[in-house]
Amino acid sequence: MNIKFVKDALEQWISDYFDNKPEVDNRNFEAMIYSIKVGGKRVRPILMLLTYDMYKSDYRDIMPFAAALEMIHTYSLIHDDLPSMDNDDLRRGKPTNHKIYGEAIAILAGDGLLNEAMIIMLNQCLDGDLNKIKASTVIATASGSQGMIAGQICDILSEGITISEEELLYMHRNKTGQLIKAAIVSGAILANAPVEDLEDLSDYGEKLGLAFQIKDDILDVIGDVDILGKNIKGDECNNKTTFITMYGLEKCKEKCNTLTQECFQILKKLEVNTKYLEEITEFLLKREF
Amino acid sequence: MNIKFVKDALEQWISDYFDNKPEVDNRNFEAMIYSIKVGGKRVRPILMLLTYDMYKSDYRDIMPFAAALEMIHTYSLIHDDLPSMDNDDLRRGKPTNHKIYGEAIAILAGDGLLNEAMIIMLNQCLDGDLNKIKASTVIATASGSQGMIAGQICDILSEGITISEEELLYMHRNKTGQLIKAAIVSGAILANAPVEDLEDLSDYGEKLGLAFQIKDDILDVIGDVDILGKNIKGDECNNKTTFITMYGLEKCKEKCNTLTQECFQILKKLEVNTKYLEEITEFLLKREF
Repeated sequence: MNIKFVKDALEQWISDYFDNKPEVDNRNFEAMIYSIKVGGKRVRPILMLLTYDMYKSDYRDIMPFAAALEMIHTYSLIHDDLPSMDNDDLRRGKPTNHKIYGEAIAILAGDGLLNEAMIIMLNQCLDGDLNKIKASTVIATASGSQGMIAGQICDILSEGITISEEELLYMHRNKTGQLIKAAIVSGAILANAPVEDLEDLSDYGEKLGLAFQIKDDILDVIGDVDILGKNIKGDECNNKTTFITMYGLEKCKEKCNTLTQECFQILKKLEVNTKYLEEITEFLLKREF
Repeated sequence: MNIKFVKDALEQWISDYFDNKPEVDNRNFEAMIYSIKVGGKRVRPILMLLTYDMYKSDYRDIMPFAAALEMIHTYSLIHDDLPSMDNDDLRRGKPTNHKIYGEAIAILAGDGLLNEAMIIMLNQCLDGDLNKIKASTVIATASGSQGMIAGQICDILSEGITISEEELLYMHRNKTGQLIKAAIVSGAILANAPVEDLEDLSDYGEKLGLAFQIKDDILDVIGDVDILGKNIKGDECNNKTTFITMYGLEKCKEKCNTLTQECFQILKKLEVNTKYLEEITEFLLKREF
């Protein structure tokens, strides 16, 4: 096994899932499939699958949950990109959903993906397995109004104003962090991991999520300098509070390194083979793109 | 017990639910609460509670599911009202969500309500009760891309064009019918009703949903004549296919009456006390507003 193999298996599952739908030819499915197939790193489902894999032999058993999680992430991107939100024309180098299908269908495609994720998870729960119900609840809670949506609201309300360190952390802990943490915790719950491990993995997910966002902000700045020739000072003036404007580039790099080390230390505590989680932590936090 | 009492108990449950949330002060909750508390007939949750009540003694036991269903209905109205969809400024005589909170927060309030409905149902399922998981799956499926959302997509795509009778029926069966049927079927599942009854109640829900929509179209026309002085001919020319433009007013009244009688006949077949379902059928299909 390697991580690329896990990712390919996920892509295949998603593709088969929509291909096998009896009404796959309606316009809503077309818009849903467009965005879910645009691609991306698939960070959240891969984290879930790799966490599960530390305890159980076949990660393919929980593929529906991994795909559902990715659908939730994708719906949030479709809605984030809308004209009334971030108004983005491109996502991963391709036109955003509303640029192709129009706003109305894009909104419904997002709704459809969130709803589909819940259908997929509930169908899995029909065997009465309590771990599946718990994992679904963790995921739904992380994506809701006291999770991802709270972070998104905070992001919208803080546009054009300077926010405090506490508000910045709250925003990212919810907007990105909650779903990353839920990916790891739900993977462990599905694998029936020991309670102590769940606590450690929750800490790991919390730190990984924060470091992931700081790394994103660092790469934005480095990207700007390389590609656009903008300097960091310029970014500091664009009225958006980021980890860079809050701490400065050097301090961000330092924080990211510290968090990365803390992630590795937590993984070392676990009595299972954490090789793949170490590998993806390394990939996510030391990447250059 | 009477139906008003059931409705009041539902309103109270919804009110208490949000009051007891620890982070009830964020802007997203405010927008969610605004729309859920604007009111309405609460047809879907009441149908669920009354169906359950035919088999079990205390309808309050399934109040979380009834409230979740109403949250799904409310989210769909918030999104339907958006500028890119129906662009409505008023709903039930009050400003629509986006008129008060802006489009971005209205979209997220809708997302939040759908997500909250799933959280509520999943939390109920944590006791492993298979009927609860089945009922949640029925509701999620009815509200998804092969249910309510399919109807909404059909509605958007058919704007300004004439659609066939088959398409009109498909649109309403999904847009309104599926959630009404799911309300009744999930209420029966939660009450552990016999399988034969589930089939009859599913038929009843199908017919009630269709009749409900025809009645709405009839009332729109009568309302237009009374209030706006528009005649029926005028409505026929506004490019929107309705049951009135498809069949004409008299045929619609006839169809609505026939469906109402069929609803009563199905209820008569059941070996439980169907008094309240008869009462609400009478109310919904013979109402003048």
